[in-house]
Amino acid sequence: MNQTRVYLDWAAATPLLPAAYEAMVPYLTGNFGNPSAIHAEGQITRQAVEEARAIVAAAVQVRPEYVTWTSGGTEGNNLAIFGVVESLAQQGRKYDSMTVITTKIEHPSVSEACSALRKRGVAVRYVQVNEAGKIDLAHLRTLLDESVVLFTTALINSEIGTIQPARAIHKVLHKAEVKYGTEIFFHLDAAQAPLWVNCQFDALAADFVSLDAAKCCGPKGVGVLVRGRRTNLVPVVHGGGQESGLRPGTENVAGIVGAAVAISAAQANWRERSDQVALVRAQAIEHIQAKLPQALINGVVPAKSKGYPSMGVDVDRVANNINISIPGLDTEYAAVVLDKHGFAVSTKSACSGSGGGASVVVQETTQDPARAISTLRITLGPDSTHDQLQSLTQTLSKHIKQMSDLT
Amino acid sequence: MNQTRVYLDWAAATPLLPAAYEAMVPYLTGNFGNPSAIHAEGQITRQAVEEARAIVAAAVQVRPEYVTWTSGGTEGNNLAIFGVVESLAQQGRKYDSMTVITTKIEHPSVSEACSALRKRGVAVRYVQVNEAGKIDLAHLRTLLDESVVLFTTALINSEIGTIQPARAIHKVLHKAEVKYGTEIFFHLDAAQAPLWVNCQFDALAADFVSLDAAKCCGPKGVGVLVRGRRTNLVPVVHGGGQESGLRPGTENVAGIVGAAVAISAAQANWRERSDQVALVRAQAIEHIQAKLPQALINGVVPAKSKGYPSMGVDVDRVANNINISIPGLDTEYAAVVLDKHGFAVSTKSACSGSGGGASVVVQETTQDPARAISTLRITLGPDSTHDQLQSLTQTLSKHIKQMSDLT
Repeated sequence: MNQTRVYLDWAAATPLLPAAYEAMVPYLTGNFGNPSAIHAEGQITRQAVEEARAIVAAAVQVRPEYVTWTSGGTEGNNLAIFGVVESLAQQGRKYDSMTVITTKIEHPSVSEACSALRKRGVAVRYVQVNEAGKIDLAHLRTLLDESVVLFTTALINSEIGTIQPARAIHKVLHKAEVKYGTEIFFHLDAAQAPLWVNCQFDALAADFVSLDAAKCCGPKGVGVLVRGRRTNLVPVVHGGGQESGLRPGTENVAGIVGAAVAISAAQANWRERSDQVALVRAQAIEHIQAKLPQALINGVVPAKSKGYPSMGVDVDRVANNINISIPGLDTEYAAVVLDKHGFAVSTKSACSGSGGGASVVVQETTQDPARAISTLRITLGPDSTHDQLQSLTQTLSKHIKQMSDLT
Repeated sequence: MNQTRVYLDWAAATPLLPAAYEAMVPYLTGNFGNPSAIHAEGQITRQAVEEARAIVAAAVQVRPEYVTWTSGGTEGNNLAIFGVVESLAQQGRKYDSMTVITTKIEHPSVSEACSALRKRGVAVRYVQVNEAGKIDLAHLRTLLDESVVLFTTALINSEIGTIQPARAIHKVLHKAEVKYGTEIFFHLDAAQAPLWVNCQFDALAADFVSLDAAKCCGPKGVGVLVRGRRTNLVPVVHGGGQESGLRPGTENVAGIVGAAVAISAAQANWRERSDQVALVRAQAIEHIQAKLPQALINGVVPAKSKGYPSMGVDVDRVANNINISIPGLDTEYAAVVLDKHGFAVSTKSACSGSGGGASVVVQETTQDPARAISTLRITLGPDSTHDQLQSLTQTLSKHIKQMSDLT
């Protein structure tokens, strides 16, 4: 890779932390035993898996038995969503007596899981979000009744960076639980969270939190589902008794060890990282607004007057996300042109496919097709600089001018 | 790990091939882009994933589009088994009009998947196996009717090493297809196969073949599902459009790259490897029979008179497997004692848990509880020597003597 590349697609993928890689190497070059095996080779890897579990548990402040290793964010989301519904179904609850609530701006691993549940007879209700992508709590209240068993959403929207008010959602759900005498499980897809916000389990007030190591400088192919005490799950994939029966198959030992280092490091100083990147982001947004007045900011517009405070769970937009629309511009092509000039950005979430098409998230939040088809997502990393963002804006500006000169 | 260790648990886990590790390193230390991203970083990893797919496709001789990356053998088995049934269900077929046939000696990732299907209303029939674990084709014929949609079994039993006659099974299934005008999909769990037998897709005559990289000197957490042309699947895990919609989630790029190197290397010289290890194994079995006359060989007893020919798909026992029972001996404890003396062996499959209990496989094949509770599985690697096996037999023999002296 060219040394002059400017990588601004941290929401799609992150570099593996050197310390995570170093922790993985012994399990790629020597210690290969099956953690379920009885012998020394197996005990070494079993210990590695359990130490890694304890590290993640400490990072999010739960007991280790509430941490389940998965193959990534997608599987964790599926395990929580199907796991809750199928567990209730096994207890005799009919699919058509269950309702799941979500939004229309979720990552495909949540939205497609909900769609699959609908095919089994489960009702799916969609809570409204405002133009910034924030969940409408008043509308949520109107959707709650005795049939509701699960509310699932991203803590941080992967395209526009909106942070949902987890604790406020929990309060609304809990009030309904008391009113109806039911249990409403609360699942947060927190794949975008560990580098930037507090992921302490109690602070999020959810029953399930899914993480993806690859989105916070860990290896690809590993994730975590953290769950609370009152939860029951049945597995999505069936097989051996690994992970307390929740996730069968030989453990990805090296990946798990690396994931623990990465998640722990991400959470160790999320606030300093967020504060610093939020400043760069704020300058960049000001700069974009000055140089590209036609650009529309998608998601929450950070309030200038507030001086860009810590982007904790109590604020509205993750520190590293910029998402703009430039109506009339082919931003898919713009991303290609930027790439040629050394800038890696995207138009929407990688899992939603790079093959064109409008952003469902921006369409849903703005109801503006011209805006939804012209998105650019610029997601910063800890070392992103204002100079890089200025340079990107300049390149983009030139490209826009060239395009308008052509027409 | 002590240099004098003798690792004889190759069915549970295998060391990562140095060439596979070297191929992975660039994707752990530099190239981290999301393969679905539009930019150069994404194109590099996309190319790596597709090149790896082409390598595996060449190794098993299918077109690359018929190779799907999974998180391992368990997920591949689930994807084939649920994928077939759910695809038919989506086409309007009722669960209770479908039958799946399997055996009672399958790995949990097959047996538990079938049990989960039964909960959905699908009938599961079990074809008989003989004392050696071979499927009874005459009995299979009697189980086939118009309701049968899938036959699923391991190509090589992970505990006793029995190789099923894939082509003969295919013929029986195909005859029933013609008779009933139906499609009966044939799935082979070939997790134990790549190092030891021919995995060329056409030679196996199956519709689906699942592989696990970790069982053939690739990384843990990666597998492959190879499928034939007439197959339709729906995914088990729901999300983005990766892997043609069959297996969503950001690709485990490094793992995939390593898996391709390992699977390809395993298949490149399976015959030479099998021939060599079969000789060591044959000597070992003779030695065990001489020194431990009370040991009963589980699975197919290799015929001495045949001179131990190439262990291809047309023979009955995988080259590297020894499975014995020593009725009356606590073999769980014996495995611990052997471990202390430097020998890594197991009692049964790792996914069936190390926490005691009888071998389901040996119980089903022998109907002898004393034999099922006293199994030892010794699975050789390419470099295992007769000296090592002699030494193991001696240690085991001493232990048995000590135990009998105690009682």
